[in-house]
Amino acid sequence: MSTHPLEEILHPQSIAVAGASDNPGSSGYGFTYHLIEYGYRGKIYPVNPRYPEILGMKAYPTIRDIPGPVDYVISAVPAAAVPNMLADCSQKGVKAVHLFTGRFSETGRQDAAELEQVILKQARKAGIRLIGPNCLGLYHPREGIAFGYDFPKEPGAVGLAAQSGGGALNFVYLASLRGVRFSKVISYGNALDLNECDFLDYFSQDAETKLIVMYIEGVRDSKRFFASLRQAAATKPVIILKGGRGQSGMRAAASHTAALAGSMKVWESLVAQAGAISAQDFDEMADLAVSFYFLPPVQGPRVGVVGGGGGPSVLAADQCEEAGLDVIPLPEEIREELKSQGISIWDWVGNPADSSIAGEASFSAGDMLRMMDRNQNFDILIGIIGEGSPGGKESIIARRKGDVKSFIKVKKEISKPLLVMVEEKSLGIKNHNHWRWRVMSEARTKLIAANIPVYPTMARAARAARKLVEYYRRRK
Amino acid sequence: MSTHPLEEILHPQSIAVAGASDNPGSSGYGFTYHLIEYGYRGKIYPVNPRYPEILGMKAYPTIRDIPGPVDYVISAVPAAAVPNMLADCSQKGVKAVHLFTGRFSETGRQDAAELEQVILKQARKAGIRLIGPNCLGLYHPREGIAFGYDFPKEPGAVGLAAQSGGGALNFVYLASLRGVRFSKVISYGNALDLNECDFLDYFSQDAETKLIVMYIEGVRDSKRFFASLRQAAATKPVIILKGGRGQSGMRAAASHTAALAGSMKVWESLVAQAGAISAQDFDEMADLAVSFYFLPPVQGPRVGVVGGGGGPSVLAADQCEEAGLDVIPLPEEIREELKSQGISIWDWVGNPADSSIAGEASFSAGDMLRMMDRNQNFDILIGIIGEGSPGGKESIIARRKGDVKSFIKVKKEISKPLLVMVEEKSLGIKNHNHWRWRVMSEARTKLIAANIPVYPTMARAARAARKLVEYYRRRK
Repeated sequence: MSTHPLEEILHPQSIAVAGASDNPGSSGYGFTYHLIEYGYRGKIYPVNPRYPEILGMKAYPTIRDIPGPVDYVISAVPAAAVPNMLADCSQKGVKAVHLFTGRFSETGRQDAAELEQVILKQARKAGIRLIGPNCLGLYHPREGIAFGYDFPKEPGAVGLAAQSGGGALNFVYLASLRGVRFSKVISYGNALDLNECDFLDYFSQDAETKLIVMYIEGVRDSKRFFASLRQAAATKPVIILKGGRGQSGMRAAASHTAALAGSMKVWESLVAQAGAISAQDFDEMADLAVSFYFLPPVQGPRVGVVGGGGGPSVLAADQCEEAGLDVIPLPEEIREELKSQGISIWDWVGNPADSSIAGEASFSAGDMLRMMDRNQNFDILIGIIGEGSPGGKESIIARRKGDVKSFIKVKKEISKPLLVMVEEKSLGIKNHNHWRWRVMSEARTKLIAANIPVYPTMARAARAARKLVEYYRRRK
Repeated sequence: MSTHPLEEILHPQSIAVAGASDNPGSSGYGFTYHLIEYGYRGKIYPVNPRYPEILGMKAYPTIRDIPGPVDYVISAVPAAAVPNMLADCSQKGVKAVHLFTGRFSETGRQDAAELEQVILKQARKAGIRLIGPNCLGLYHPREGIAFGYDFPKEPGAVGLAAQSGGGALNFVYLASLRGVRFSKVISYGNALDLNECDFLDYFSQDAETKLIVMYIEGVRDSKRFFASLRQAAATKPVIILKGGRGQSGMRAAASHTAALAGSMKVWESLVAQAGAISAQDFDEMADLAVSFYFLPPVQGPRVGVVGGGGGPSVLAADQCEEAGLDVIPLPEEIREELKSQGISIWDWVGNPADSSIAGEASFSAGDMLRMMDRNQNFDILIGIIGEGSPGGKESIIARRKGDVKSFIKVKKEISKPLLVMVEEKSLGIKNHNHWRWRVMSEARTKLIAANIPVYPTMARAARAARKLVEYYRRRK
């Protein structure tokens, strides 16, 4: 266990939910329900004077009425009720309070901003640390603490700090559906007390966290932040998504988390100087997280692409090149090897290796990947699982399953990073259960289970690969 | 009916499938099956000396053995068998042959390229027009002709010509899942006889086609092409995706359709000068097709965004601004209107209008859209259906359904273009039937049924909107 102050906050022995509720539509219900659902092993105290019992547990009128000690409080009470609640926390010796409660400085109203400052002073005086206000707080799978339904229960290696609760929630779904698991996730909203620097410092020294991901709208102390960032990025990859990059985004950030965003040019150059990696949106953040999560270090930009049909291979080449990867021509040694094996298309196939031309040649995407892995001219391999085949149900299912199986087999044998693009469509409810799209979902599930990162488009796979190339080049 | 030579080719009274087959895994089966499945009303003649019957229909050993006249032949025979098959076509008075058959000049082999030229001469001599070789041919829903399974049977207003069969197939799925329907789709491969100019000229004067979409790897005659393009773009929107933009893509294009790609800079400037719209990949091509298909002319770049939570609203502002849209501050008149209605967040809400701050205010995303529609400062409206809500099942389903319902209601009342971003996730097979993702698919289905274009990400919605702004600005 580290000595960072967050270490204790993240491992509470007991949690009270102020403003707990029996109404399943409310957040006071959700926070209480999640503690049970995710298997929190400490004591759970629902607090609400209006209920004798909540979710089958005795409810307490106030925090003061709780019999045992309380380490951590989740506050779902209205803003005006926070000072009294905090006074109770102080009396009870509470160590940290997560203020889900919002409507403070982010409203732009003077009285709300003043109340926020009153609360900060009150907490400081009582020695209580605050997460928030205006945020979803903690998702800490190892402890059984969560702020959303359907999150993975098993822990992992990604630490996320996000200034947006909806963003944090969205990212947990985005990344976990692609196989990422989390060490700790902190949605921290207005960052009144504990802020992005604290979370970054914590993740930096947390042994469970191998990869740090952040969504930030504004930093409280730029100097401290970039010093923390430099230190963190020296030990593990740090991916940062900045919200409030332009004029309108800055305005929106101010009314979301009262964040004051500065010049984007300065920000970007400082992030790059610190050795961190910038993402443009939550999708790219997920692409990067998935890439670092599953891939070994990338040695260079020379890419081999296999598995697509003709048109998709042409566009894959364009998009890899446009992303800054080097789509080298198929090396002569591989051509000679194909020829010596009697593969009829030895002189025709290239890189990208168009899968639709194989015909009766006893030669698969997996075979090509193996050759590219052995060949010293390739640094990165990208496989394509596409939907664009004209065949019927049985032949398409057989081909998709065959490709997935061969990618998984090859993955175990090779040492170079392998990314797989699995095409996606905007499905309507009538298409949801059609075999054509289900076979793609099956492909994703199987590839992810084999620790292979999947990407919905070639452009996104290529851009993620390029950012890894740059990252590892800088590390050298 | 127009007098363009393609008009007759696209309306054959009888179709023979040379190389038809009873093996469901084969293309010879697929092409025959589709004619039945999509309800082709002309005569269907399977041709294959090895079968007495195919798919319940009498099969003929050769095209010569067919009793009645044959207008159109789909060739799925091997390359070496094409000259004999063409000789039969000639004798039979066939007007057009679609050569699904490949392995010609795209192989880079001299003998294959020579055979291709022999075939071209043979066809010219016989007065037979060729589509292909090395392509999937026609999807013409009104006639019941198709080259893929699960295509929409009802026709629409988009004409697509694609040099890649897999690309054409992929695009039909991509766009039709988002509500687009097609007039005619032509996959034309090596463009040995009929080429991109013929298809473009045809679509240009085809009354059924309101929007032209093309995937091109290389053009045979640049001068003629850009003249055709200029003419077509003067009458209807033309969206062009170029494959083979970089060095490696050009190499790939040569081995895919024997296309010779030229300088990309010259290409792009000529496309823009002609008044056509460039797309970077099939996804963007679908975004643009969907936008033109459903939206009225866009008058300017000033956008109003509603429906997202805090973080998503901040990023929406950034991404709209980065795409070149103008995310104007919420106009004072709307603020005053909110105030006069007693909406408590009148001073706090902005543009984007963060949906998560409404709280108990009796005020919805739909209300805000209506106000933005009435306000002269907005040109474009974008709605967000996001997944990032912390609530439980019932509350999330109720909110999503409520948002969808209000967007659909508002759509009927307003005159400004409304785009809706419906978030997407990379689903695995275990998540496929979860209510959380099904509710999003339901949202897509309902919005599309109400003629509202849906987009999987804000960045893509914003980029599509921006390209429409530019298009309509040029048209003025």
